[in-house]
Amino acid sequence: MDHEAPAAPVRDAHVLALRDGEPRGRARSERVASEAPLEIRFGGAASTVLMRTPGDDEELVRGFLFNEGLIGDLADIVSLAHPPATGDERGNVIDVELAPSKFVPVKRLFYGSSSCGVCGKNSIADLAIRAEPLVSRLAVRRSVLSALPNRMLGAQATYRATGGVHGSALFAPDGGLVAVREDVGRHNAVDKLVGWALAQGLVPLSDRGLLVSGRVGYEIVQKAIAAGVPVLAAVGAPSSLALDLAVRFGITLVGFLRPDAMNVYSHPDRIQDD
Amino acid sequence: MDHEAPAAPVRDAHVLALRDGEPRGRARSERVASEAPLEIRFGGAASTVLMRTPGDDEELVRGFLFNEGLIGDLADIVSLAHPPATGDERGNVIDVELAPSKFVPVKRLFYGSSSCGVCGKNSIADLAIRAEPLVSRLAVRRSVLSALPNRMLGAQATYRATGGVHGSALFAPDGGLVAVREDVGRHNAVDKLVGWALAQGLVPLSDRGLLVSGRVGYEIVQKAIAAGVPVLAAVGAPSSLALDLAVRFGITLVGFLRPDAMNVYSHPDRIQDD
Repeated sequence: MDHEAPAAPVRDAHVLALRDGEPRGRARSERVASEAPLEIRFGGAASTVLMRTPGDDEELVRGFLFNEGLIGDLADIVSLAHPPATGDERGNVIDVELAPSKFVPVKRLFYGSSSCGVCGKNSIADLAIRAEPLVSRLAVRRSVLSALPNRMLGAQATYRATGGVHGSALFAPDGGLVAVREDVGRHNAVDKLVGWALAQGLVPLSDRGLLVSGRVGYEIVQKAIAAGVPVLAAVGAPSSLALDLAVRFGITLVGFLRPDAMNVYSHPDRIQDD
Repeated sequence: MDHEAPAAPVRDAHVLALRDGEPRGRARSERVASEAPLEIRFGGAASTVLMRTPGDDEELVRGFLFNEGLIGDLADIVSLAHPPATGDERGNVIDVELAPSKFVPVKRLFYGSSSCGVCGKNSIADLAIRAEPLVSRLAVRRSVLSALPNRMLGAQATYRATGGVHGSALFAPDGGLVAVREDVGRHNAVDKLVGWALAQGLVPLSDRGLLVSGRVGYEIVQKAIAAGVPVLAAVGAPSSLALDLAVRFGITLVGFLRPDAMNVYSHPDRIQDD
């Protein structure tokens, strides 16, 4: 239906391209990654706005609610859909009805951004995570990990068009990509993946790894813990807090993942020599 | 005083470095960027947590409050300081007292993350920005812009140590760096800069440019508008919404800034040929 059509993840833009050797520059059309607010309503009341790349909105909201601990599983969601809407709201609103036991007063709710992972935590004490350390016998070979970033790039259509989105992927121990999602917000890309995995009945993801294109901070590790992913690999650097959480909650954290090198920051037993 | 000492922006970490040609890997010490929660309290009540790299905390909070529109200028802040604290809270809390006219009920407050820029906006309608389009005669030569990313890197001590933080800089039309700040959250790096500029009496920054190391989304442009910066240049890509805001609010938006090339997405009249 028309009102359900999400905006495209990529949009054309007029650009003045300035290149050395071209004194006056050249007007041309390039593609930029779409960013638009997604308003989440509970019982019709607006409570949260996520800045996201349109597409996979239902997955995003499911994964967000799960990773933030607002739902325990999909059965806690009675309904979740784009309502009929017009104008700016068209395709940019999700109505959620939670099971009565999960009713969340609006005033308790978080506000989101394209990377809002501590939303809803309003004191340092609240940052303590309730999860148990992960136990998983998952093992991944070094050569499998090393090949993953280029494989994920091959599946990132929006990145190839724009250079402006993060990617994240779930992968099997043999290196097969299970799912790939993209978003201007790197946390959104992970929430989309987890929302997809929830719908597939794959959570906890104890026999899958998670790859992210950027850096790894507290919030990405928190989502990995919530989703039960034992191996988290990143092209970028980890933060100190990401490392501390990974050590504490049994996650193998890999950073600076390159075709010929990587750093393992925690629980290296899951990474096997070839 | 002891309780005011912030944590260091860099921390040592044990790493298992896996390199091709070294079958067993090598344990070594590397440095990672610190990430820790900063709790903001108003009148003693916890309301917001920012995940940030410790250091320049007062600047961060001042800039955050200003860029989020919670204060109009520094006179709206009666006091802002690290309180005495112990344990995890040591160095990770900021007590703020606002002028009575600026009293913000806790329930209205936003929640923050390392990149929380739409915090406090709880509907799409709220995203409309009240600012007027910027008018500024600032002009910057192409060669000056092209040289800025490497110049900023030269001033990024934490990035050079860790590879894990974003940088942002205020620059003069002749390319001189006025101030550089770093943070695991790219929005925090901008808030720190603006907090510094507020204390220097430099806001609105109508004769300065802003450089950011990463991508430019809605939230970065929003902060540039709040601070009155007419030229915003990024090493990374802009999002569609960033571009729309820049067009509407009179900001010259430059993306993919390289030594030999750049894209100008809006108001190119402020970029001069050499």
